[in-house]
Amino acid sequence: MPDIAAVKAALADQRIETPSWGYGNSGTRFKVFAQEGVPRTPREKLDDAAKVHEFTGIAPTVSLHIPWDKVEDYAALGAHAKALGLELGAINSNTFQDDDYKLGSVCHPDPKVRRKAVEHLLECVDIMDATGSKSLKLWFADGTNYPGQDDIVGRQDRLAESLAAVYERLGDDQRLLLEYKFFEPAFYTTDVPDWGTSYAHCLKLGDKAQVVVDTGHHAPGTNIEFIVAFLLREKKLGAFDFNSRFYADDDLMVGSADPFQLFRILHEVAQNGGFERETNVAFMLDQCHNIEAKIPAIIRSVMNVQEATAKALLVDREALAAAQRAGDVLSANAALMDAYNTDVRPLLAEWREERGLHPDPVAAYRACGWQERIVAERVGGEQAGWGA
Amino acid sequence: MPDIAAVKAALADQRIETPSWGYGNSGTRFKVFAQEGVPRTPREKLDDAAKVHEFTGIAPTVSLHIPWDKVEDYAALGAHAKALGLELGAINSNTFQDDDYKLGSVCHPDPKVRRKAVEHLLECVDIMDATGSKSLKLWFADGTNYPGQDDIVGRQDRLAESLAAVYERLGDDQRLLLEYKFFEPAFYTTDVPDWGTSYAHCLKLGDKAQVVVDTGHHAPGTNIEFIVAFLLREKKLGAFDFNSRFYADDDLMVGSADPFQLFRILHEVAQNGGFERETNVAFMLDQCHNIEAKIPAIIRSVMNVQEATAKALLVDREALAAAQRAGDVLSANAALMDAYNTDVRPLLAEWREERGLHPDPVAAYRACGWQERIVAERVGGEQAGWGA
Amino acid sequence: MPDIAAVKAALADQRIETPSWGYGNSGTRFKVFAQEGVPRTPREKLDDAAKVHEFTGIAPTVSLHIPWDKVEDYAALGAHAKALGLELGAINSNTFQDDDYKLGSVCHPDPKVRRKAVEHLLECVDIMDATGSKSLKLWFADGTNYPGQDDIVGRQDRLAESLAAVYERLGDDQRLLLEYKFFEPAFYTTDVPDWGTSYAHCLKLGDKAQVVVDTGHHAPGTNIEFIVAFLLREKKLGAFDFNSRFYADDDLMVGSADPFQLFRILHEVAQNGGFERETNVAFMLDQCHNIEAKIPAIIRSVMNVQEATAKALLVDREALAAAQRAGDVLSANAALMDAYNTDVRPLLAEWREERGLHPDPVAAYRACGWQERIVAERVGGEQAGWGA
Amino acid sequence: MPDIAAVKAALADQRIETPSWGYGNSGTRFKVFAQEGVPRTPREKLDDAAKVHEFTGIAPTVSLHIPWDKVEDYAALGAHAKALGLELGAINSNTFQDDDYKLGSVCHPDPKVRRKAVEHLLECVDIMDATGSKSLKLWFADGTNYPGQDDIVGRQDRLAESLAAVYERLGDDQRLLLEYKFFEPAFYTTDVPDWGTSYAHCLKLGDKAQVVVDTGHHAPGTNIEFIVAFLLREKKLGAFDFNSRFYADDDLMVGSADPFQLFRILHEVAQNGGFERETNVAFMLDQCHNIEAKIPAIIRSVMNVQEATAKALLVDREALAAAQRAGDVLSANAALMDAYNTDVRPLLAEWREERGLHPDPVAAYRACGWQERIVAERVGGEQAGWGA
Repeated sequence: MPDIAAVKAALADQRIETPSWGYGNSGTRFKVFAQEGVPRTPREKLDDAAKVHEFTGIAPTVSLHIPWDKVEDYAALGAHAKALGLELGAINSNTFQDDDYKLGSVCHPDPKVRRKAVEHLLECVDIMDATGSKSLKLWFADGTNYPGQDDIVGRQDRLAESLAAVYERLGDDQRLLLEYKFFEPAFYTTDVPDWGTSYAHCLKLGDKAQVVVDTGHHAPGTNIEFIVAFLLREKKLGAFDFNSRFYADDDLMVGSADPFQLFRILHEVAQNGGFERETNVAFMLDQCHNIEAKIPAIIRSVMNVQEATAKALLVDREALAAAQRAGDVLSANAALMDAYNTDVRPLLAEWREERGLHPDPVAAYRACGWQERIVAERVGGEQAGWGA
Repeated sequence: MPDIAAVKAALADQRIETPSWGYGNSGTRFKVFAQEGVPRTPREKLDDAAKVHEFTGIAPTVSLHIPWDKVEDYAALGAHAKALGLELGAINSNTFQDDDYKLGSVCHPDPKVRRKAVEHLLECVDIMDATGSKSLKLWFADGTNYPGQDDIVGRQDRLAESLAAVYERLGDDQRLLLEYKFFEPAFYTTDVPDWGTSYAHCLKLGDKAQVVVDTGHHAPGTNIEFIVAFLLREKKLGAFDFNSRFYADDDLMVGSADPFQLFRILHEVAQNGGFERETNVAFMLDQCHNIEAKIPAIIRSVMNVQEATAKALLVDREALAAAQRAGDVLSANAALMDAYNTDVRPLLAEWREERGLHPDPVAAYRACGWQERIVAERVGGEQAGWGA
Repeated sequence: MPDIAAVKAALADQRIETPSWGYGNSGTRFKVFAQEGVPRTPREKLDDAAKVHEFTGIAPTVSLHIPWDKVEDYAALGAHAKALGLELGAINSNTFQDDDYKLGSVCHPDPKVRRKAVEHLLECVDIMDATGSKSLKLWFADGTNYPGQDDIVGRQDRLAESLAAVYERLGDDQRLLLEYKFFEPAFYTTDVPDWGTSYAHCLKLGDKAQVVVDTGHHAPGTNIEFIVAFLLREKKLGAFDFNSRFYADDDLMVGSADPFQLFRILHEVAQNGGFERETNVAFMLDQCHNIEAKIPAIIRSVMNVQEATAKALLVDREALAAAQRAGDVLSANAALMDAYNTDVRPLLAEWREERGLHPDPVAAYRACGWQERIVAERVGGEQAGWGA
Repeated sequence: MPDIAAVKAALADQRIETPSWGYGNSGTRFKVFAQEGVPRTPREKLDDAAKVHEFTGIAPTVSLHIPWDKVEDYAALGAHAKALGLELGAINSNTFQDDDYKLGSVCHPDPKVRRKAVEHLLECVDIMDATGSKSLKLWFADGTNYPGQDDIVGRQDRLAESLAAVYERLGDDQRLLLEYKFFEPAFYTTDVPDWGTSYAHCLKLGDKAQVVVDTGHHAPGTNIEFIVAFLLREKKLGAFDFNSRFYADDDLMVGSADPFQLFRILHEVAQNGGFERETNVAFMLDQCHNIEAKIPAIIRSVMNVQEATAKALLVDREALAAAQRAGDVLSANAALMDAYNTDVRPLLAEWREERGLHPDPVAAYRACGWQERIVAERVGGEQAGWGA
């Protein structure tokens, strides 16, 4: 049986990065329901993120999205973060919201559009230099809607060329994280549709290119933990974008649709060294809180990852391995399920109290008055959202 | 073998309704790419629809969407349509874009919101009285995103009560068409997720309630033609919302993702009397032309339905039935495939020329100057879109 | 918070029926891996089922499959069951393993084959009379593999006629349970592919016809708990066939692939009176233990249903309803998750000890020597399997 | 527009390999429906394959499956093939039907089982030496059914080691083709579940290892033509296993479920040099004719591939490329659809007559008397099937 002290120590090492855009408004193609108190500036997003970290103790970094979080003075933004006990995290590019990108960005048939997209990516690296961010997270909305619309292989050639230009620009301690997505917003082909495509490009680029696994970006039925295990074996797992889904890229709170899947994924992480600092896997959220209150939803999401992590750490790996070696299917499965069926909430409440945190982060947030304050103060200005 | 004259006569009876919103801007949650020349008013949408009818000869009616197509004077709108050779078609309600509808409309836990939604639906029937529309098409975005969010059965009770209030209000020659959808924008439960739910409600409401089959609203792998055949057998198929998809509700041009499926669906329609006027099945498009030119895309879509219809009419039903009776799997399949593999474009070109139409509607539209004219003239004002 | 005594009392009312064929050999189309000690006769299957009941205390009935469990003397079989503390449960028909059924049974184009199939179903009712079984469970492998192979509506007509003949024959306290299945073994159409089709037929047949929900028989992403809630609202949920799946009809141990889904299903059962005796929902397993030891796998499956039931009974329904009424998405979801995240194994161990059962049924079975005994004794003869 | 003579010449170069096991009995896990006249020996399978080649003119090679097609004297088998105008094609291994393989073969936790599996694979290379076959096609049923059952990464290590041993043994002109499969017969993990896994292993093995794309082995919605294009770009597409599916690995006749998908796949083949001899892509069928007559089903399948190929060759690539460059979505799609909508059956009938073949191969087969002869002659003995 795992040692509880060791489990607690491992939990103390965990860091979960929250996305600046998760604090802003979001929605579906049918409607964005605006919420009161939503931040209007990158600084206000950090203010909200600080609350998540204050009550969970494990969310000290915040991903930025360019241009949504573009500011004049990144040093000042960084200082604001630092004053809040935070650090600026990965830089996320956006090559899908300019009118030029209707038919793609780095894969667009027109070299002018590709150039513009690559320029944007290089600017993101400049921003990394300014913020001290170590990771450039690339998700491309590129793809086609109709058979014949463009040349699949031609688009791969353009993608490879664009990625090479960005890779070349990376500093020694910077890396490029390439996300894949099954579909949406493109409906026929997506230029990086699956882990295999991302992996193949990263392999050619070199050691500073790694794959991002967004848990909502797979075909129905895909065994995500297999991919995670495989990429860890290949040293090509760079980051997670956590969220949860019943159907497509629903972007629900991580762990809300299939908590057992989240546990299985984190079991593979634990099993294959993915929680160790030197493996350098980034654990990020990428979610949309369309109808639920945003800050407590993010707190809850961080807790969901933490609970699944605790369960994964509680797996009796010796018993598991022994049953596997013996070919005892039921006992091996039972060893895994024993950890999953454990209620880790008391352990985590204790762990929090040992760190001076409230045992119930959501209740603590609700009682702290922040929500009332931002609703009252954040009046006027333009609320942050996917287009702002 | 089917008689060509009979096929042509059947084609002459076909009517395909185009949706007013298909002429306006649309997009994904990531971005709406605006197009030049897009209509700014319901009248301009009709102007565009008139072009589709002018070149295809089979698209004389236009679905309206309330409130997007709300006008002061429906008689004047109807007169405008008539002057263009068109008629106003089904009225589509919208209970998903007011802030009140964040947690639903007719299924909302709060009776005030339900009342508001029902009022809107009753207003839609008032508009039907004014326009002479015979069909009220209901699609509800209602549902939940998280397990436990609301009570599934409670929501069904509210749905039933709301529908009954609307049904009660229908005139003798009016009907209610209830659409179902697998998911989106709700991500955990949808209150009318499948044909069974729609069918069960329609059955209780009575003969004036029928099911709408939107070809993009099913789980992966669903055999849509089975549903179509089943509903025709039950006299509960009210209408189609045609479009095409590779993944989810992609809303691509009908027939573009799986033309064979479209043929199989229309074969069941032909086989079970669905093309006969008295069956009263409405053939409507419901699509989004996010990246392609809108009017020619709609022309192409009308042609795709027409081509698939022609193939369905060409099925040698006697040979098919004989092979089926004999249990000759390969010959029965071959009888169907023979019709599908036929190139019906020459037949349709001939059919058009017999009616004084250009044999190639897309080419004719491109040559007619309309696109250049609307791009030049429709400057200023607000372009129609899902939110306008 | 729910009262623990009430939860325990509800657990004491629960009955889970195990399938005679689950004790026999099974496999995939690629290979059946035979296991030692597998029963060779219906009596030996009952002997194994008695062990499951002995250690769980809640599995006192056994479903029979005809012809696999055909015997000369059903009274003697019933007496054998009774001596073991068991009762004979539902009768399951088989219209898919005779050579005549290559193109279907009750939907076959040839009336002779249909007649044979209906005769078999009537014989099953005769057997029900002999065994005292109250439920006839019908699953039809009927369908087609190729478009055009047969007439969809014609097959529905034949299905309706066949079902009517069987319904007519039922005694006053007997019922017919109609199962649906998305696909397999038919690959193009299935004649009862979804709950809507089963529901529509049952509605026409009358009150003694109800729907069976097999948890593995749905399209990817289908919200099964919605269907369960809907059918309970309509008083048309007759039974569950429990099992678990990652992809298709994998027939794994219930709760092993998605334990959260099992909980959500049983929450809807609890919420809508489905555990009450008068609702008369049968809770059955229908699984294949292809690679794991069969008896402990069935014990584990019974426990999985029981654990999920205990969690469903622990839902604080007042807190849940209050949050739902208030539109508090996060609190409503949290109310459900609190119950799910509870470790009910201590409660169930206690519950078992109160009844004189061993707290760990799998361990108790492993220690009791039965497995060694059947491996030693059941030598020679033909092991039971899907074809025997 | 493509030159018809060039199209005909390209068609003359096409070779489609048929699988020996397609001539034998097959079925689902529920039932194998035996057919009369099915071959009992490898020689008789070749006799049937010769008929397919006789009437289509493009199916001169036959894949063998070991041990199903194991014979004492491969030279004699080769001579029999030659006498029939055939050649022996790829060797397919079988590591899924021995009792030892219950928990896997090359990935099994027990080294003894792995050794046995590798020995079998090496024996297959010996047989290649004897038959002159150039390709070893590897499909592994390896995987797990339950979470925790075995170690995912450990299994990858064992897979890599086993593959390396086989790769090492290949002759200079031999290659290894590694197939992937989404699921079945394993239901939780599959050890080579997707093209990315196969690609990654092949990359490490070297140039003589390539990926096999079986068109039925993907998650729902997967864009197969993207994978084909990607692998051709990487020079890692070794072969196709053609068949068709609506749901899972249905193994229906290729082109019967989604003929447009087959066309799109072959368009990518044409577009990226995959039909050229030096690219060395093998076009194989891998199907199960469970309910339809086998030989005409295979003839029909060969014709379906040929028809889709003809359409792909008819694509006006200049018009397509021009529309793509111009970003004209509708015209680019139309260029592709024009080829698809063409009825190529007259062209192919003509092409056959030019070669002295009957214009309608199925009709010719039916008229030739072979079926009656084998039904009469092949009496007694054991019919070939998946287990024989």
